[in-house]
Amino acid sequence: MTVPSMALPELVDRSSAAGLGGIGLWSSSWETLGVDEAARLVRTAGLRVSSVCRAGMFPARDDAAREAGRSDNHLLVEAARVLDAEALVVVCGAAVGTDLTRARREVAEGLAGLADHARAHGVRLAVEPMHPMMIADRSVVTSLREAVDLVETLDHPAVGLALDAYHVWWDAYWREELARAPHRLLAVQVSDWVTPVVHQLRSRGMPGEGVVDLDGFLQTVTGSGFDGVVEVEVLSDAWDARPADVAFAAALAGVDALGALAGARAEDG
Amino acid sequence: MTVPSMALPELVDRSSAAGLGGIGLWSSSWETLGVDEAARLVRTAGLRVSSVCRAGMFPARDDAAREAGRSDNHLLVEAARVLDAEALVVVCGAAVGTDLTRARREVAEGLAGLADHARAHGVRLAVEPMHPMMIADRSVVTSLREAVDLVETLDHPAVGLALDAYHVWWDAYWREELARAPHRLLAVQVSDWVTPVVHQLRSRGMPGEGVVDLDGFLQTVTGSGFDGVVEVEVLSDAWDARPADVAFAAALAGVDALGALAGARAEDG
Repeated sequence: MTVPSMALPELVDRSSAAGLGGIGLWSSSWETLGVDEAARLVRTAGLRVSSVCRAGMFPARDDAAREAGRSDNHLLVEAARVLDAEALVVVCGAAVGTDLTRARREVAEGLAGLADHARAHGVRLAVEPMHPMMIADRSVVTSLREAVDLVETLDHPAVGLALDAYHVWWDAYWREELARAPHRLLAVQVSDWVTPVVHQLRSRGMPGEGVVDLDGFLQTVTGSGFDGVVEVEVLSDAWDARPADVAFAAALAGVDALGALAGARAEDG
Repeated sequence: MTVPSMALPELVDRSSAAGLGGIGLWSSSWETLGVDEAARLVRTAGLRVSSVCRAGMFPARDDAAREAGRSDNHLLVEAARVLDAEALVVVCGAAVGTDLTRARREVAEGLAGLADHARAHGVRLAVEPMHPMMIADRSVVTSLREAVDLVETLDHPAVGLALDAYHVWWDAYWREELARAPHRLLAVQVSDWVTPVVHQLRSRGMPGEGVVDLDGFLQTVTGSGFDGVVEVEVLSDAWDARPADVAFAAALAGVDALGALAGARAEDG
């Protein structure tokens, strides 16, 4: 989603040539090819699928909407299985109306139901706390504390956490919350905080473009035992307005400037 | 600041006529008249000054900037004393650079120093946790948990809390954090969450315009023992672009639609 206009074959070629260990995929990325062909492409290139994004969106207006959501989530579990993804990211969903307590209950119930389905298909779910400015659009789970509480309470073998620096860097307590459940961490993402925020969902910056101490973030994350692929996920209207290959190069440059990721990619192209 | 273009005499007249119990003032509001005349106007109208906004901004680039900030803060303490304000709101300040740990230490140190000065002048400081999307501009104190920890650790008779629904409504834990220190609550503000967020600082809505359960918020706040004046604080480029009297009327209408504030104003005009 950092380069949404780049077709999957080009993304795979460039990622492989850049020595990346894997890529994170949103469902739009395999819309044209189909998920089986997408999986073949990625596998042939020797890349891992670090995550598939995104299932979830549990709070629903009515039973019909809830059933439609469940059906979408099952398709995503199937896709994650075909792609052999390390995790299926769960974005829990916004409230319908103003009742956050009800929404959070629906999230817990929806997650529990999806967890069994995921386990049956050998897929792991990664619950992602999202920045509080996204609460009305994407997720009532707005802090790592809440995500850890949710996941620890459910205590399901198929359910862990996704941690994105952009969503948690403001939180004075994210490190101690992660220390409650480091073994749950399934997916890690980085992007940077740039101001002004011109939209609550699509104002992210490339690593190094903003004020987040991403090296410190990644040191904590790897120190907690995470050894998976770190994703760069930059949802940005500003970057989307530029050519995809420029955005791709900027993401690589941002990664290379992070000491915590030194040597993480084996460039061969 | 809900009606920044309305001159203080008109604001005082309208607020008094509307049966409001008090008004919150930013320093810009007395720039023209001077603080003594402002205090006389407000007192003559029978209004309380629910809060003065804002001191704080503790992290500084260097000693000169820190000294300038201290001097500004002392002027605000003096103004709050002259205005007989219920509280002087403290906006703790953003980090200089990327080191949030250092910034939070500077906030704790700066607050401790200002607390003694405030106490000597009979002024109470209200530390305001701010929405995490404002961390790079306004405050590294981004949750009520952090504000309560800060204030409880300092445990100073002149230091309490300011609570704005806009800044904390997303937080699944704000109620239990408030329950740790309900006696510290000195100032309460409301505005509403509207999307899209077009700027991290100035996208607020009038009560009722968005998705925050402000009645539930106020029930919790009054249930915790707060019996002061509730402020409407709507920082909004969109509302600022409309005539101030239209914004003032919209704020009143928003307040009147809140069941939790039923009967709170004694309209006589």
